[in-house]
Amino acid sequence: MRTSQYIIATLKETPSDAEVISHQLMLRAGMIRRLASGLYTWLPTGLKVVRKVEQIVREEMDKAGALEMLMPVVQPADLWEESGRWQEYGPELLRIKDRHNRDFALGPTHEEVVTEFVRKEINSYKQLPLSLYQIQTKFRDEVRPRFGVMRSREFVMKDAYSFHLSQESLQQTYDKMYQAYCNIFERLGLDFRPVIADTGSIGGDASHEFHVLAESGEDDIAFSTESSFAANIEKAEALAPKDTADAATQELTLTDTPNAKTINDLVEQFSVNIEKTVKTLIVKASDDVDAEYIALVVRGDHELNEIKAEKLDEVASPLEMASEEAIRDVMGASAGSLGPINCPIPVIVDRAAAVASDFSAGANVDGKHYFGINWSRDLELPTVADIRNVVEGDPSPCGEGTITIKRGIEVGHIFQLGTKYSKAMNAGVLTETGKHQVLEMGCYGIGITRIVAAAIEQNHDKFGIKWPNALAPFQVAIVPMNMHKSHRIPDIANAIYDKLVAKGIEVLFDDRKERPSVMFNDMELMGIPHQIVIGERNLDNNQVEYKSRTTGDKELLDVDDAVDFVLNQIKNA
Amino acid sequence: MRTSQYIIATLKETPSDAEVISHQLMLRAGMIRRLASGLYTWLPTGLKVVRKVEQIVREEMDKAGALEMLMPVVQPADLWEESGRWQEYGPELLRIKDRHNRDFALGPTHEEVVTEFVRKEINSYKQLPLSLYQIQTKFRDEVRPRFGVMRSREFVMKDAYSFHLSQESLQQTYDKMYQAYCNIFERLGLDFRPVIADTGSIGGDASHEFHVLAESGEDDIAFSTESSFAANIEKAEALAPKDTADAATQELTLTDTPNAKTINDLVEQFSVNIEKTVKTLIVKASDDVDAEYIALVVRGDHELNEIKAEKLDEVASPLEMASEEAIRDVMGASAGSLGPINCPIPVIVDRAAAVASDFSAGANVDGKHYFGINWSRDLELPTVADIRNVVEGDPSPCGEGTITIKRGIEVGHIFQLGTKYSKAMNAGVLTETGKHQVLEMGCYGIGITRIVAAAIEQNHDKFGIKWPNALAPFQVAIVPMNMHKSHRIPDIANAIYDKLVAKGIEVLFDDRKERPSVMFNDMELMGIPHQIVIGERNLDNNQVEYKSRTTGDKELLDVDDAVDFVLNQIKNA
Repeated sequence: MRTSQYIIATLKETPSDAEVISHQLMLRAGMIRRLASGLYTWLPTGLKVVRKVEQIVREEMDKAGALEMLMPVVQPADLWEESGRWQEYGPELLRIKDRHNRDFALGPTHEEVVTEFVRKEINSYKQLPLSLYQIQTKFRDEVRPRFGVMRSREFVMKDAYSFHLSQESLQQTYDKMYQAYCNIFERLGLDFRPVIADTGSIGGDASHEFHVLAESGEDDIAFSTESSFAANIEKAEALAPKDTADAATQELTLTDTPNAKTINDLVEQFSVNIEKTVKTLIVKASDDVDAEYIALVVRGDHELNEIKAEKLDEVASPLEMASEEAIRDVMGASAGSLGPINCPIPVIVDRAAAVASDFSAGANVDGKHYFGINWSRDLELPTVADIRNVVEGDPSPCGEGTITIKRGIEVGHIFQLGTKYSKAMNAGVLTETGKHQVLEMGCYGIGITRIVAAAIEQNHDKFGIKWPNALAPFQVAIVPMNMHKSHRIPDIANAIYDKLVAKGIEVLFDDRKERPSVMFNDMELMGIPHQIVIGERNLDNNQVEYKSRTTGDKELLDVDDAVDFVLNQIKNA
Repeated sequence: MRTSQYIIATLKETPSDAEVISHQLMLRAGMIRRLASGLYTWLPTGLKVVRKVEQIVREEMDKAGALEMLMPVVQPADLWEESGRWQEYGPELLRIKDRHNRDFALGPTHEEVVTEFVRKEINSYKQLPLSLYQIQTKFRDEVRPRFGVMRSREFVMKDAYSFHLSQESLQQTYDKMYQAYCNIFERLGLDFRPVIADTGSIGGDASHEFHVLAESGEDDIAFSTESSFAANIEKAEALAPKDTADAATQELTLTDTPNAKTINDLVEQFSVNIEKTVKTLIVKASDDVDAEYIALVVRGDHELNEIKAEKLDEVASPLEMASEEAIRDVMGASAGSLGPINCPIPVIVDRAAAVASDFSAGANVDGKHYFGINWSRDLELPTVADIRNVVEGDPSPCGEGTITIKRGIEVGHIFQLGTKYSKAMNAGVLTETGKHQVLEMGCYGIGITRIVAAAIEQNHDKFGIKWPNALAPFQVAIVPMNMHKSHRIPDIANAIYDKLVAKGIEVLFDDRKERPSVMFNDMELMGIPHQIVIGERNLDNNQVEYKSRTTGDKELLDVDDAVDFVLNQIKNA
């Protein structure tokens, strides 16, 4: 492709509305443009990358035995009513009415449609297991779309669904999909991790997220230093740092603390170790509890994990923090002076706080704290539960090593759905013995367009994108300097271009009448892995310059060797 | 692909709700399933065909210099307000509101979005001409979706748009697209015709439809017997059969015709030649005319062309036929007794009727007709215009030969839009002389999913689909008879399968435990072009049977020659 016949659309300035680097670079490299909030047009350069992701995903899905199909974007409401999600799903589900005033939705996902298909088409156990997938446009009406295509409203997704007679069969396909996802992200050239994810009501290792590791990731992922264990921090089990509390060494004292409104105040003003403090958070109780509020106690250096908290029977879901007024009403003190001693409402204490000794906490009296608290001696140990986020150094829940934390971007999610949809929608088959059996179901998603952004978050420098070879929109850039002032430069550039194209290589030939620096900057920005620079000075020695975008290495090549050299670089990449 | 690992989903019975053969066969061959009115799920077999169409279209668009991009399905209303189409477009435009109550539409076409893109990105004449295309899901909320994917609500379309400094440049790209479309339909193996289409207000040969010829087509296409002229019958110019009327030979007589309510009654009861009759149709007048209604006169054997009629200045657009009551009020007679003599409202007469002589027509008195009417002698010749459909035998408007008529299915449309959108949306560039210039624009559509149905309408027999090679979901079917009772049959079937797959051929290996007749019927129904049948009897002679789906020819092949033979058949197809 010659730039003169292409849309380069690079931008020198960083657009002010782009917060994250991938969004900035996708705009600057001429990959996407915003049409409206959360709606993006893919330019040729961007779409080429999308298609590469799609193709690798398609090949690995096919290899895993999944069959590609295509379901409508527009879905009838009655199926969503059958599954119960027409009511349950929030406003992210864009509900629409057709000209006859019938209800439809723009598909954010296709469990209902695929289950409807399977219950009509699949009647016999002989047709199982069955895996179906599609690569297709989805719509989620995000309340605050942001980060470009990372969290857009319209996006391209690969969604797969599998159907089974038994949990064992589901597990087999799940394992196959897990492997297919690993293959996909390896082939894409990304540093990724499969991560244990929330399993909801199903239990077991029944859900994994796939994360591309990048400092800018929205998710924290907990890894074991010694094993392959990795879990989303929201879901990583937090163990107590030791089995039992140390013996008490301090007396319980009630102290005036008029200027200690926060844990940090307490630590600074009274020289206590933050691990010897606890904080008390008041949340709405569930209907199961004979109280309006519940107190949650975590160590001063720990953070409440809201997902874990709202799963407790005693706590209302979704989690609702008490207002300042409610705290004062119920506790008789303000948020800065709360604690487990003399607490008028039920208390749940985190595992780590439950093995603290000689610790301090608010006294439920404004401006007063207790110091030297010890469970059992000073108050009964309340219910203990895992309600905090893991932190670096925690024992890994896998039993080996300790926790380290890295940031990740979720680009895939595989999930054992069990019979959630098949039961609600009555999708079953006759077994070998003639009995009707509800199907087990799995689902497997990959955010195709999101991967493009995630790859950039992981692969860039101050000059622009550094595409992994598998994702590059063009493998090679030919940059002839001041081509329009010379005869031999265009001749050699054209010859190299033709040879590479004949070998099936995607080449961007920069034939614009631009200053060399403009051309260099654009090719760097667009992240083309292999660059051939052709200029008068080197041609005097019958040479051209090769530059690797990945390593930054430059090398002078004899003109006649240039094509083979580049082909080798591509092959060995 | 082995059938045991695939969804065959063939149906023996013809679904009762499928009216046209392509819809019936797509359901029966397991290509599509209905999700809701006008919404279809594409099964693996159907999607394979869709992808083949897409790939050929993509390759030819790329070759024509168009750049592929991807625009959102969901489009903001404000762009449609700028173009004026938010108001103009009927309820086929599905208007929706997002969670913030902002207006959007599901894209039935993308002129607004692409013009918005170009006005922001393209600033200089140096970047022109520019052609952009996408292959993407569209939505049109048809009032009565029917014929399966032929007229569905959600469908896949290739839409391209070109931008130019001048009409000459637009014409060049238009010609290139015309050629690309011819290449596409030739490569698809379809019998097609480019057909002159309505040019609206632009004039010239500025629009062509591409039709796949098939008896079941919805459109009538007029061809010249002598030239390449072809036009949609709605738009084909109808010439007068001769330059002037013959001299009068009959007297004008007023006759009682109490039982002649229609032209056919008149012809039968009074033995007149139908070409010597005219019929008079009353339509609503436009505001330009000082009358509420207009009488349109065409020959008894001709049909009014509503599109031509409503384009007349005198006629209201859209065309509105007068009600029975209105006719009686205005004309003083009922619809069966109308004519141009003593007509109380303005009359427009078709070119062919205008050269009729000695003809008969209603007398505008119930139960009476005039016979032997001659223009000029008996009444002044009113305004003459082209208001009828051409018929077989008419002189071709190209000047060569006469008209023949065939039926076609519109699968493509190319159109010179001029400045309709670029002016309304202010899309322009600076010219070489620094002047602001509004862009000329062309648009070029192909109905990807519709082509699949049209190809079947053109290529089928009573056993099922007969795929052109380029469209076949699989090139080869291997049908081993009673494989499960034998050792050598599966061995040979597997060996042939492996060799063909290694050559990159798409093979469907029917390894089901089904009776041979079921397998034969399914492979015929699915229309797989090349079939290899493996059975005990032929294997005794070390032979297998080859069958061509296209010709029906069968041939016995030595086992060792089978692969090469089939490869040759595919190559030479």
